[in-house]
Amino acid sequence: MTIMNVVFDTVRKQLKRTQRLFNKQNSKKNIKTLIGDLISVKGESAALAISQQIIGHIDGMTQDQFEEVFTILLEFDIDTDALSNASKNYKANPSKYNFNKIKEASKPNWETAFERINECPGGTSCLVNLRSNLIALEKNNNNYGRLDASLKNMLTAWFNKGFLVLEEISWSTSAEILEKIIEYEAVHEISSWVELKHRLEPEDRECFAYFHPAMPNEPLIFVEVALMNQVPEKIESILSQGRVRVTKEQSDTAVFYSISNCQVGLSGISFGNFLIKRVASELQTKLPNLKNFVTLSPVPNFRIWLDKHHPDFAETLSNIDVHERQSLLETLNTYSALYFVNSDRDDGLPNDAVARFHLGNGAQLISINQFGDGSQKAWESGAGMMVNYEYILSKVEERHEDYHRENIHSISKEIRHLAKAIN
Amino acid sequence: MTIMNVVFDTVRKQLKRTQRLFNKQNSKKNIKTLIGDLISVKGESAALAISQQIIGHIDGMTQDQFEEVFTILLEFDIDTDALSNASKNYKANPSKYNFNKIKEASKPNWETAFERINECPGGTSCLVNLRSNLIALEKNNNNYGRLDASLKNMLTAWFNKGFLVLEEISWSTSAEILEKIIEYEAVHEISSWVELKHRLEPEDRECFAYFHPAMPNEPLIFVEVALMNQVPEKIESILSQGRVRVTKEQSDTAVFYSISNCQVGLSGISFGNFLIKRVASELQTKLPNLKNFVTLSPVPNFRIWLDKHHPDFAETLSNIDVHERQSLLETLNTYSALYFVNSDRDDGLPNDAVARFHLGNGAQLISINQFGDGSQKAWESGAGMMVNYEYILSKVEERHEDYHRENIHSISKEIRHLAKAIN
Amino acid sequence: MTIMNVVFDTVRKQLKRTQRLFNKQNSKKNIKTLIGDLISVKGESAALAISQQIIGHIDGMTQDQFEEVFTILLEFDIDTDALSNASKNYKANPSKYNFNKIKEASKPNWETAFERINECPGGTSCLVNLRSNLIALEKNNNNYGRLDASLKNMLTAWFNKGFLVLEEISWSTSAEILEKIIEYEAVHEISSWVELKHRLEPEDRECFAYFHPAMPNEPLIFVEVALMNQVPEKIESILSQGRVRVTKEQSDTAVFYSISNCQVGLSGISFGNFLIKRVASELQTKLPNLKNFVTLSPVPNFRIWLDKHHPDFAETLSNIDVHERQSLLETLNTYSALYFVNSDRDDGLPNDAVARFHLGNGAQLISINQFGDGSQKAWESGAGMMVNYEYILSKVEERHEDYHRENIHSISKEIRHLAKAIN
Amino acid sequence: MTIMNVVFDTVRKQLKRTQRLFNKQNSKKNIKTLIGDLISVKGESAALAISQQIIGHIDGMTQDQFEEVFTILLEFDIDTDALSNASKNYKANPSKYNFNKIKEASKPNWETAFERINECPGGTSCLVNLRSNLIALEKNNNNYGRLDASLKNMLTAWFNKGFLVLEEISWSTSAEILEKIIEYEAVHEISSWVELKHRLEPEDRECFAYFHPAMPNEPLIFVEVALMNQVPEKIESILSQGRVRVTKEQSDTAVFYSISNCQVGLSGISFGNFLIKRVASELQTKLPNLKNFVTLSPVPNFRIWLDKHHPDFAETLSNIDVHERQSLLETLNTYSALYFVNSDRDDGLPNDAVARFHLGNGAQLISINQFGDGSQKAWESGAGMMVNYEYILSKVEERHEDYHRENIHSISKEIRHLAKAIN
Repeated sequence: MTIMNVVFDTVRKQLKRTQRLFNKQNSKKNIKTLIGDLISVKGESAALAISQQIIGHIDGMTQDQFEEVFTILLEFDIDTDALSNASKNYKANPSKYNFNKIKEASKPNWETAFERINECPGGTSCLVNLRSNLIALEKNNNNYGRLDASLKNMLTAWFNKGFLVLEEISWSTSAEILEKIIEYEAVHEISSWVELKHRLEPEDRECFAYFHPAMPNEPLIFVEVALMNQVPEKIESILSQGRVRVTKEQSDTAVFYSISNCQVGLSGISFGNFLIKRVASELQTKLPNLKNFVTLSPVPNFRIWLDKHHPDFAETLSNIDVHERQSLLETLNTYSALYFVNSDRDDGLPNDAVARFHLGNGAQLISINQFGDGSQKAWESGAGMMVNYEYILSKVEERHEDYHRENIHSISKEIRHLAKAIN
Repeated sequence: MTIMNVVFDTVRKQLKRTQRLFNKQNSKKNIKTLIGDLISVKGESAALAISQQIIGHIDGMTQDQFEEVFTILLEFDIDTDALSNASKNYKANPSKYNFNKIKEASKPNWETAFERINECPGGTSCLVNLRSNLIALEKNNNNYGRLDASLKNMLTAWFNKGFLVLEEISWSTSAEILEKIIEYEAVHEISSWVELKHRLEPEDRECFAYFHPAMPNEPLIFVEVALMNQVPEKIESILSQGRVRVTKEQSDTAVFYSISNCQVGLSGISFGNFLIKRVASELQTKLPNLKNFVTLSPVPNFRIWLDKHHPDFAETLSNIDVHERQSLLETLNTYSALYFVNSDRDDGLPNDAVARFHLGNGAQLISINQFGDGSQKAWESGAGMMVNYEYILSKVEERHEDYHRENIHSISKEIRHLAKAIN
Repeated sequence: MTIMNVVFDTVRKQLKRTQRLFNKQNSKKNIKTLIGDLISVKGESAALAISQQIIGHIDGMTQDQFEEVFTILLEFDIDTDALSNASKNYKANPSKYNFNKIKEASKPNWETAFERINECPGGTSCLVNLRSNLIALEKNNNNYGRLDASLKNMLTAWFNKGFLVLEEISWSTSAEILEKIIEYEAVHEISSWVELKHRLEPEDRECFAYFHPAMPNEPLIFVEVALMNQVPEKIESILSQGRVRVTKEQSDTAVFYSISNCQVGLSGISFGNFLIKRVASELQTKLPNLKNFVTLSPVPNFRIWLDKHHPDFAETLSNIDVHERQSLLETLNTYSALYFVNSDRDDGLPNDAVARFHLGNGAQLISINQFGDGSQKAWESGAGMMVNYEYILSKVEERHEDYHRENIHSISKEIRHLAKAIN
Repeated sequence: MTIMNVVFDTVRKQLKRTQRLFNKQNSKKNIKTLIGDLISVKGESAALAISQQIIGHIDGMTQDQFEEVFTILLEFDIDTDALSNASKNYKANPSKYNFNKIKEASKPNWETAFERINECPGGTSCLVNLRSNLIALEKNNNNYGRLDASLKNMLTAWFNKGFLVLEEISWSTSAEILEKIIEYEAVHEISSWVELKHRLEPEDRECFAYFHPAMPNEPLIFVEVALMNQVPEKIESILSQGRVRVTKEQSDTAVFYSISNCQVGLSGISFGNFLIKRVASELQTKLPNLKNFVTLSPVPNFRIWLDKHHPDFAETLSNIDVHERQSLLETLNTYSALYFVNSDRDDGLPNDAVARFHLGNGAQLISINQFGDGSQKAWESGAGMMVNYEYILSKVEERHEDYHRENIHSISKEIRHLAKAIN
């Protein structure tokens, strides 16, 4: 893994140099002309030059300008008559020629533009940026839906998992990347460089991120790990400066306590599944004494679910005084068991988004800890609950297949019993 | 560039390690079942495991076995009814949902198999190998045409030019890569390690190859360069041990005297265009005294063209005694001018394959050297002719666009005059 | 240079791993026994193990404990009788055997201890630490002088300049190194990570440090550079956020505005000479438009010199109101010219320590800027003066030889005239 | 370890570049003037320039020219009067000043020349080359002895073991290094690139070399390893193409069958000790199933010893017909046991040079295999005998100390019994 760090450093420097070179080529042409040119140009070098200008334009665009770009792109849609025709011809004669015709006809010309942009230094980042804007604007404009589908499809192919690179994030990592870790941390906020050092440097801390050569300066997803010798119930036992600390050698439990996706523009392209398993096996090799791999996870959708399915109790929660919360322990246990064991969704998947992620990865829900996070934010989303999912490396594949093939959710007997008792 | 050498070394080592790990997973299942499983499986890890077994099967297959594989894959063709339907629906309502339906319907399931194989370590090499067999068998079985078109399409996307890496090939390169240089040299054969050292080590020699991270142990294409202070007319002035040698600093001319494509399975996916320009600009930076970038190239299709268009002279050539050849100098000059200046092809492109390559890249044909290569092989293909194409970096883009947009072939005035004189 | 960054990253990681491994070997033996064992042990592996324990002991020692170590070491002094004998024998017969005897006899056994410590991972750092304590304690204990001389001698040999590695320090540098840049900045203090980013990230900033493989995690010396298109007179024109900024391409002047030695334990072993010339030629290659290489330097010893040689004016300076300082401009010009042009030292070297450094490197003093630094600290040491030294690459070697051979100080005509006028 | 390969590749490239730059500076001065200048010059840059010229001179010198250089250097010998004086003064007053005086006086000025040469790119190689010539000429000229002692002393310090880098040598290693492996193999000759590939590529082969950053293009020592599942008795069972081959996973025994020192100029500076232990622990990590680490070693001094101590039997051996050798089995067993168990040397060390190396490293002699090597060379040196030394990692340190402290030779009971039976 450290080897790949080296590799990535060089890839990063290479990219910066190339981008500097390219950025000199400014352009006065407007974006509409440029997109038209990009799609129609023949020579590869010319395409590269135009792409570079487009990338320059897109960097720093306002929302209105993005809408203009999307509107221009939509003009280059699939010719459905040509496609129907190609389909008919191929049915009659599945020749090489007719196959190619289907491929051409089923590809809107905007995809040609995307492909050409992607071949430039910095092009992939530009497209990821484009898609994050597309996602934001899509809510108000259905037309952008097909553009998003198309771009997601292409990004999925380019972010080939074979090229994902795991990097250890530590106090030796570059300030530039660390700055992004501070920015992207989505679960337990990092408020300063000092706090960041506390998260990375102590011996009982580990942190790993996935990177991709197409976008080497941007972490795609990262996970923060605490080394302990027990399964934690409360987030303070992990984050507090006064916590009990163990040496790497004493620890037997790796706790994944924060997982953050970094790129909105890659939503729906999942890396977390691979990340956790990779990190677990990486840690296992490095620290053979590790026996348990668990999470300490929030329950973000619980209060919303309560609002909908158990409005009375939801009401109670909203009104209770902070000092009285403890009195709700048993009721909370009951409802949370129901929340996790049963599904109220049409697709039968777990009610909780985090549960869908971990159970989908092949983990098991092993315990529910009421009042595990005392923050106001945690109270408002998950009634302060934190739960542990366990990754047993030897069972992860089977559970993963069970989940995806047969919608089986792996939940510990105790929690199932509790839910059954209520039903 | 040297940085990327470092990077590649690590990528290579990484790949070898991973492949070793995966190769342990043997399988008793037959290839038919495996391909079916691969297309239908849900979980990503299962897909990876099956792919690995398929890769193991394919490595070392006989021709019959390849035909079996291709026949199985063809069963997973496009459902044209679904595609026509999807096209109709999208015409009526270009929604995100309908867009995705077109994408699904226009993708034969064999492409799913290819995608999954490509995510494994060693998967890309396996697919390149598959395609080289497909190309060989396609001649006798038209059915394979669509499979080839599909795979070529996918390989083109994966061999993204943004990831091509130029490496200097020298006597410090690994024996494993050098062995392949010996094997793949297609223009002027290298008969031993001693001869290889003569091609790489002297100060007036350079060699560069393109590699791609998807297949880091295999050069895609390489070019051998001689540093001189004149434009050479004969291949002996480059290859002979007794040649006049210049130091790097004295040289003003870089001669590309041998360009070899290495991967049959990537035919039709062009890298040479980029390679020559990249190498020229690399050399320019390294040796600012270089002023001319030329080739010394064979004329492989000349005798075939003569056979067809000037059978009398073709006959003369076939019968002439080796000692009398010199007497044909003027006639050869005439016919070769015609050969290069006019096109006898339907598409109007140059008659000569090598001319199509260099003129298409933006070079100019500047001179024709009769008897430039005294070997029997050169006599039989190009009547012993060698020609020089010149790459002028500041004009290469314009000529490249002219060629591809308007079929303009850049040929020196002298040669044009000669051809005109005859007409 | 970027290549060496890569190299160093790996060296650093390697070192950390090895140190972790070694640190496990704890020891109960006291330091006296350990040092005795280290000097007498035969086997190399045993020596390594003992060294490791000594390194563990030394890390975190108090002043008293250091004194104990030094006292123990002093017991292993040169046997002068043996040395005189060896010298006599060699005079009589300069044989190989007798030569070796001189070498043995002239080497105190404490040097054997130092050598063996130096072969351990982390050993060099330990010895540099040892020497910084030696220097501190030497002031009160003359006995430590010979130990310091011996260790300095050995460190000089080990910090072979052939292995010095120049690294660009930027916002992409690791947080661990950057933290040390904040700590070691000795000229213009860096008060926070935000300020550090201001020093490193803007396009008109550069920073370079020297590292050595023997101590890869510690910068030895670093220089901060401002790109400008004029020779600056005031430090504000460099450090203020509201300064005029130029692009790298517009700049024609590189200003070395802060040079900090980082390792007390390496005092007297000069790296700065090499650093500035290396950085200048590095910048010249990267930015061919750069024409001037100058410093903006403090004048740290001016007030002390005034106190001694011109007590009346020194008195005036001490008493003047901050708002009246401007009125002293001419007198300051006079005295500062005298200060720089004449030497009041026995060795005839420049009065100013910074002048000794830059003139000794082959630079020329080109201008004196009164009130160039408005800070209290600058007022108290150099009466607020800042000066410019210029490095002309083509003259640097000659001036360097002139300085060291003939004590010639390169100072501009204008300043010399000014001083002459007074005399 | 692979990381260090990467590092080394970059160090190598760096060195080549720098050497090219420096080599331009030619010189007309003769070597005598240059050496004088080098010793007297003050400025560091001037010293560097002169050193570079000297290096240029030395590269390609004849024996006579080397003698000239050595004669010049000898003029800069130790001033013994100054040294005696310094010694006396230090005895009277062990001040810092007097310590430095001893250091100066005990250092002949030729060492200053060596130090300065060593700071240049390529300087270390030059000095190693110098010493190999010194060793050759020393036999005929005793005067060179002290020069050799001095240079050896300095090289020992520079080739700090902390910087030794282990590299795996494989078919992926650069042709340039592999060419040197062919050249330096001293035990079982490699006659061609094809044979080299047979030594490196099969799964049951490993090869490792030590490199040092001071001379990164030159292996210092390398060892060839065969993976087997038995302790071999004959060299054919290792080298023959028809041998039984095992996979890496099946093997339980690593056989070090060839160890070659590469640099004559580093004789007496031992790396082999470290190499074997490092390789053994490297292999142990990589292949946890390995249980035995043994050698299959020649017995190079046996026949010479016989000639001296048992001339009758030596005579028999010389005269016996090749087909009758087998009849001597028992007598050979007897004499070889004596040869290994007893010492006929004044220092009491083993009679056999290879035994001194392995037993000194902490190995044990476990078996003697008569007729283990059928070659004529092996018959003439060791009567065709091959022996096995065993490295037991947990005992190696203790045996190493025993050997060096108390001259205890670790030899198996069986062999001791055999020798005792005879005595």
